[in-house]
Amino acid sequence: MAKTDTERKRASLRMRRPPVGASPGTLIADPAARRSELRLTLISPEKFKTIENASLDDLSTHCDRWPIVWLDCTGLANIALIEEIGRIFNLHPLALEDVVSTGQRPKVDFFEDHAFVAMRMIDDVTAHRYEQIAVFFGANFVVTFQEREGDPFDPVRKRVASSEPNRLRARGADYLAYALIDAIVDSYFPPIEAASEQVDGIEDQMLNTTHKHQMRQLHELRRDANVLKGVLWPMRDALATLIRNDVPYVKAETKVFLNDTLDHSLRLIELVENQRDMLTGLIEMHLSLTQARTNDVISYLTIVSVIFMPLTFLVGVWGMNFDPDTSPWNMPELKAYYGYPAALLFMGVVAVALVAFFKWKKWL
Amino acid sequence: MAKTDTERKRASLRMRRPPVGASPGTLIADPAARRSELRLTLISPEKFKTIENASLDDLSTHCDRWPIVWLDCTGLANIALIEEIGRIFNLHPLALEDVVSTGQRPKVDFFEDHAFVAMRMIDDVTAHRYEQIAVFFGANFVVTFQEREGDPFDPVRKRVASSEPNRLRARGADYLAYALIDAIVDSYFPPIEAASEQVDGIEDQMLNTTHKHQMRQLHELRRDANVLKGVLWPMRDALATLIRNDVPYVKAETKVFLNDTLDHSLRLIELVENQRDMLTGLIEMHLSLTQARTNDVISYLTIVSVIFMPLTFLVGVWGMNFDPDTSPWNMPELKAYYGYPAALLFMGVVAVALVAFFKWKKWL
Amino acid sequence: MAKTDTERKRASLRMRRPPVGASPGTLIADPAARRSELRLTLISPEKFKTIENASLDDLSTHCDRWPIVWLDCTGLANIALIEEIGRIFNLHPLALEDVVSTGQRPKVDFFEDHAFVAMRMIDDVTAHRYEQIAVFFGANFVVTFQEREGDPFDPVRKRVASSEPNRLRARGADYLAYALIDAIVDSYFPPIEAASEQVDGIEDQMLNTTHKHQMRQLHELRRDANVLKGVLWPMRDALATLIRNDVPYVKAETKVFLNDTLDHSLRLIELVENQRDMLTGLIEMHLSLTQARTNDVISYLTIVSVIFMPLTFLVGVWGMNFDPDTSPWNMPELKAYYGYPAALLFMGVVAVALVAFFKWKKWL
Amino acid sequence: MAKTDTERKRASLRMRRPPVGASPGTLIADPAARRSELRLTLISPEKFKTIENASLDDLSTHCDRWPIVWLDCTGLANIALIEEIGRIFNLHPLALEDVVSTGQRPKVDFFEDHAFVAMRMIDDVTAHRYEQIAVFFGANFVVTFQEREGDPFDPVRKRVASSEPNRLRARGADYLAYALIDAIVDSYFPPIEAASEQVDGIEDQMLNTTHKHQMRQLHELRRDANVLKGVLWPMRDALATLIRNDVPYVKAETKVFLNDTLDHSLRLIELVENQRDMLTGLIEMHLSLTQARTNDVISYLTIVSVIFMPLTFLVGVWGMNFDPDTSPWNMPELKAYYGYPAALLFMGVVAVALVAFFKWKKWL
Amino acid sequence: MAKTDTERKRASLRMRRPPVGASPGTLIADPAARRSELRLTLISPEKFKTIENASLDDLSTHCDRWPIVWLDCTGLANIALIEEIGRIFNLHPLALEDVVSTGQRPKVDFFEDHAFVAMRMIDDVTAHRYEQIAVFFGANFVVTFQEREGDPFDPVRKRVASSEPNRLRARGADYLAYALIDAIVDSYFPPIEAASEQVDGIEDQMLNTTHKHQMRQLHELRRDANVLKGVLWPMRDALATLIRNDVPYVKAETKVFLNDTLDHSLRLIELVENQRDMLTGLIEMHLSLTQARTNDVISYLTIVSVIFMPLTFLVGVWGMNFDPDTSPWNMPELKAYYGYPAALLFMGVVAVALVAFFKWKKWL
Repeated sequence: MAKTDTERKRASLRMRRPPVGASPGTLIADPAARRSELRLTLISPEKFKTIENASLDDLSTHCDRWPIVWLDCTGLANIALIEEIGRIFNLHPLALEDVVSTGQRPKVDFFEDHAFVAMRMIDDVTAHRYEQIAVFFGANFVVTFQEREGDPFDPVRKRVASSEPNRLRARGADYLAYALIDAIVDSYFPPIEAASEQVDGIEDQMLNTTHKHQMRQLHELRRDANVLKGVLWPMRDALATLIRNDVPYVKAETKVFLNDTLDHSLRLIELVENQRDMLTGLIEMHLSLTQARTNDVISYLTIVSVIFMPLTFLVGVWGMNFDPDTSPWNMPELKAYYGYPAALLFMGVVAVALVAFFKWKKWL
Repeated sequence: MAKTDTERKRASLRMRRPPVGASPGTLIADPAARRSELRLTLISPEKFKTIENASLDDLSTHCDRWPIVWLDCTGLANIALIEEIGRIFNLHPLALEDVVSTGQRPKVDFFEDHAFVAMRMIDDVTAHRYEQIAVFFGANFVVTFQEREGDPFDPVRKRVASSEPNRLRARGADYLAYALIDAIVDSYFPPIEAASEQVDGIEDQMLNTTHKHQMRQLHELRRDANVLKGVLWPMRDALATLIRNDVPYVKAETKVFLNDTLDHSLRLIELVENQRDMLTGLIEMHLSLTQARTNDVISYLTIVSVIFMPLTFLVGVWGMNFDPDTSPWNMPELKAYYGYPAALLFMGVVAVALVAFFKWKKWL
Repeated sequence: MAKTDTERKRASLRMRRPPVGASPGTLIADPAARRSELRLTLISPEKFKTIENASLDDLSTHCDRWPIVWLDCTGLANIALIEEIGRIFNLHPLALEDVVSTGQRPKVDFFEDHAFVAMRMIDDVTAHRYEQIAVFFGANFVVTFQEREGDPFDPVRKRVASSEPNRLRARGADYLAYALIDAIVDSYFPPIEAASEQVDGIEDQMLNTTHKHQMRQLHELRRDANVLKGVLWPMRDALATLIRNDVPYVKAETKVFLNDTLDHSLRLIELVENQRDMLTGLIEMHLSLTQARTNDVISYLTIVSVIFMPLTFLVGVWGMNFDPDTSPWNMPELKAYYGYPAALLFMGVVAVALVAFFKWKKWL
Repeated sequence: MAKTDTERKRASLRMRRPPVGASPGTLIADPAARRSELRLTLISPEKFKTIENASLDDLSTHCDRWPIVWLDCTGLANIALIEEIGRIFNLHPLALEDVVSTGQRPKVDFFEDHAFVAMRMIDDVTAHRYEQIAVFFGANFVVTFQEREGDPFDPVRKRVASSEPNRLRARGADYLAYALIDAIVDSYFPPIEAASEQVDGIEDQMLNTTHKHQMRQLHELRRDANVLKGVLWPMRDALATLIRNDVPYVKAETKVFLNDTLDHSLRLIELVENQRDMLTGLIEMHLSLTQARTNDVISYLTIVSVIFMPLTFLVGVWGMNFDPDTSPWNMPELKAYYGYPAALLFMGVVAVALVAFFKWKKWL
Repeated sequence: MAKTDTERKRASLRMRRPPVGASPGTLIADPAARRSELRLTLISPEKFKTIENASLDDLSTHCDRWPIVWLDCTGLANIALIEEIGRIFNLHPLALEDVVSTGQRPKVDFFEDHAFVAMRMIDDVTAHRYEQIAVFFGANFVVTFQEREGDPFDPVRKRVASSEPNRLRARGADYLAYALIDAIVDSYFPPIEAASEQVDGIEDQMLNTTHKHQMRQLHELRRDANVLKGVLWPMRDALATLIRNDVPYVKAETKVFLNDTLDHSLRLIELVENQRDMLTGLIEMHLSLTQARTNDVISYLTIVSVIFMPLTFLVGVWGMNFDPDTSPWNMPELKAYYGYPAALLFMGVVAVALVAFFKWKKWL
């Protein structure tokens, strides 16, 4: 199970790219891409209408009658459909190529009448699966492409549907695009906070005992943090680019809100950097605690060896077979009345002296 | 106890943020937020007046009659009240959202007629608890929001109340805001200096003996320093932004004083960076001292083993049961007159030779 | 074999440079350079023509009649030929010197009517051999110099030959140059992805068992990643320079495509940086896993020693030759009825007690 | 003694600052500050006059009659005096606050008619004590404040007094200020060079034998280098600010000389950085040499153990009390004519075989 | 010998500077400086003339008659001569001070009618001795100062002397200065490449066996690389400054060539950085290989100990002197018919079981 997770994780970070040397702007479907489905949301300040499983005909029927059109395309298998959408909204071919070549770095490209924002979202909190979400927006439309069902846009949809004096419906396509981008950025908070809690948990555990598996967990968490850092930095850059631009279809008041999103992305980066520092510190501490324990064990071995080696030598001495009968020099103590207790006493003295020596050396 | 501290520490660094995808500018109270209380300070160059537990009516009564109004709101539970304050002073909704979403990065936002400064203050020296303090200021008002009672503003209040020719009362709202921000920045000095002294203490201790708990302390101090660094850098950036601006409600002479605060924040960063370098060095030295001690112990074990192993072998040799009666080759020394003393002598020579060898090898 | 690979790898990264102090612009053939061969591709929007093994006469015959001329020179041994080509297309002598001094950092130089782009391509996926490719392009010509046969230009040649409304033929020399540069950049994806898979493979292996050879592999992969980083960063810089320029022979619409190539190079750098972080983490983990295993082995040694040392001491005690006949103190247990079983029992108790002690200490 | 040094060292790096929240521009004397003493040097191109233990009256008497007035105040205890000096020369209150709050980061502040340069000087080569020196200078005056007697200004005083056509007296107050700053910067060379020599000495020592105390020395030297780096970088920044300014009281020709001082500060930083790299390398090498020696010792232990363990086992075998009389299987070798020599021979063969094995494994 | 090398190395990196506080522009001869010798090269497009051991009279005689004058001064002992040269060519006193204060950081200073370029050259490939070379050049002169005979200018001299249409003679003083600087920069290639080969050699060696002396070599090579980095970076900065300037005496076409030299310096930095990464990786690998070998040795010790300890215990058991005659419990096996073989068999079984256990644990 864990392995499959790992593999899915790895796969989701690989760039799906056209073959080396292919003509730029060539759309080539990823064999693993999902069937494309369209969802059309038509928005005016007063009302709104959602068409699930929309067709391109729906699009052409309604397109001009509503101030804001949001077309959400899920699944990137239907290249013809995507190219047709590109033609309808006049999207740039290179940007469309980036839509189907998933695994792009988050970025922003400005074209004459629309912007292209490539974002990455976390698809699955536990498996850290990333999914590319492409957002095109112009004066009166937003087109989003996502790889799979499941997106962080539900709160936005609810806000579109809510009856209160509706800022989202009133403010135009760039504000809707902002709301979608903001939702993507904010969707990083839960997994990062979950990881932080995991790190805290491991730290608490380590203060009690160290285990080998903690090392592995710390290593994996750090790898995840590295990957996140690699996603969040270009995301921040993309947001900064979006704010710095001066294209007519991004209004100044929307930039104030984008600035807020930029703040969130900075906060995310700070959280991840902090987490990495923590993890590096914990990995170091784990190593040093393990090392300390080995040192304890070695000291223990040394002490026991150093005590018993002289004692074993002594009993060996008195176990030698020198014949006490042939010479008064040959271990007369073997036949002495208090020979044995004296020997034991001597050995006891040696042991106590060694222990005292260790105490004095502060090794015990 | 320590654990609760740790948890409080961690909690105070988490960002309290609106749910993912919520409409921007939505104020949502943190369930743990304290009851809001207002304290109104009315200031003119000649006199001043403080109203504790002020109501919004007090605000509207006095607001226009005094050149500087300082409204200090403690506790962020009363969203309606905060929104009403926002309306009275015309504060930007996104900034108000940041007020209740505590755990923001320190930052400055400029709006048409007021600036918003988000700061973090150290709430409790021993537990390193951080608290967000939001400072709004315009041409004639300062509004501060803090999470809890307890703030570093008392010296400022005393200076407002002091009777000497009173610069603070005379210089306008931006100078008051500067005084508050300066007080927040300066409140970082005592805990950082306390930590420095702790580091020095551990260093002195380590020069005598190394203990495992030192490692843990060093690790925690470094983590704290990392957190501090993460707070101080954006604080410095916010101060630099505040100085670089050219909005009408920040006077040039106030910027000279803000520059002084910026210097203090740089000094704080320097102290923390220095402390981190020290800690990294000490952690390394701790590791190497521990390692060195283990090496000592291992060398000791080796020496004792290497001396006693040949000796034990020798006594084993003379403890073998070869029958000296059946053959003149079978250990005739066992029956020799000086057999035993000769054996002891031989073993002594071996031991002395080994010790001499170790001395020569410089292992002893 | 592996060694030869290593040597070839090293050799291909060394800069072949003119002798120290030589006059700049001096062309000196590398003794190991291949025989030069020319391939001339003549391109107009409607048709195209390829002359293999072209001569300089072919060049002068056709040069002016076609809107785009692509001269591809393979092998850098024929200095006279290269100088002649330089004269025909009016190429700058310093740039020509860089062509034959292979091992240049990727870079772009702009001259009055042409640009010089030095790139490095990966020649061989398994051996990580690098080859310098020099691309000159002006308003109506592209000249490429490569060290050896074998290049990533085949897809470009196919696109030149393809019959569909042909963007490549229609857009001019700068677009052709872009297509060639893009093909070189994209050719880095396969080896980097292969290395990523190798890293993943080693990681999976390490989770099972650690071997010494993994360390060596990780080290080599990191060295390769370092080399790649050193190639990719100047490549990115060169591309950025190419986009930032404002020379007449690079059209604005081509820059949009070059921007896409820049994105790819950034993605490559990201991949390589990510890989390096991974490798550094894995090397650390390898060290710590090896360390952990040694710790296990040492603990095991300690436990066995600490159990058997007291036991061996005890059997030594009862093996002493004190004469039980001469004194009631001299080990009467030797002649006791249950002496031996009691002794075994006592030793058993000691062993069990030690094991219990280890369990309590959590060392077992 | 060493400890007192350490403490003095630490103390001199702590910032003495007014209490948190104090009104800015408040001068509060450090309780440990020395009694203030004034030394007035009056300079004109033709002559000069030095008044030791000058009073403020001397100042007002002479001030206007000489083109350059240099007031040197040693000891910062007399706040009233310092404030009076500030009033006479119209020095900015915030800068004066920085004068008495010693431990400032080196910096430059420009005011309307004077500049304030805060520098740190090394007070004592062996103890690495730092002392703050504040230099104010305007069109016709230089005021210096130092914490203690003992400064690097003696060569400047000698140059003021020298009779040769005297550039220092002729060039104005900014050149005098430059000469003082240059003297402070240059005073860093001797201690840094002394430290470099110490590092070289330890390196030479380490190539012979490694000792624990070397580690401690290396650690302390690195800490000192870190502190120096923290002093030198802001010093460099201050010098660069001084050069980049365009205030009327710093002449362009003086900036050429300040540029020279900037070069020196860069050289100092380079020396310190180099020293730190050296120290980090030496610490690593020390660790690895210690490790290598432990490895040697462990190998030695292993070899001796592995040789003597089988031998001791063998002598144990022949020391067993199986009764050869009851069975022909019970160690008949004990009664064999060549039993003992054969046993010794066998043990010799085992020992030689093991040693040969170790030689083959290259462990010996 | 090695030590003397080390000392010479160190010495050559120390800055020879005037005493602290000396008047700037004071020329003070290094006591170790060599006797100054002049070599005058007079160059016009058509012809050239070299005067060895030139005097200042030669200089004044020829100076105005030739378009380019190159004065090369070897040895810096003759301060009066150097000052006289400075007066003749109107060189800036601060720059002249830098000439005799050898050990400057490479840098460029522009003065009204001449530039001063301080470079460092590698004097001796094996000893890594650095020598300062100062290059002054104006509209029609080049003055070079070097510490010792032996320079990398011979190829330039040959190019001056060569009869082919001579670019070097035709292009003016700035081109000659470029040629000299380029020769200095290029002279770094051979030693860096030699070091690279040494690194490769050590790597190959390490793949076979690790030795302690490799560590030392790696450490020294890294230190050398650090020193080189410290020389090359300011050299690169100096070259970039030289190109960015817009002084009349550096022609635009010369800047194209200087750009080429800048490329070489970047390439050198890249080589050195690469080498440092390599060395850091190799040091890490060396440590880990040494560690791995120790682990092997420890495992070996453990295995042998764990096998022989139980066996030695067993032979000790049967060596105990319990009297089998007094009790049937007292080791009846001693008198059993197959007692001894059974004991040996039992011990064999224990040994085999332990070995099998190790195999199962994968420790053997």
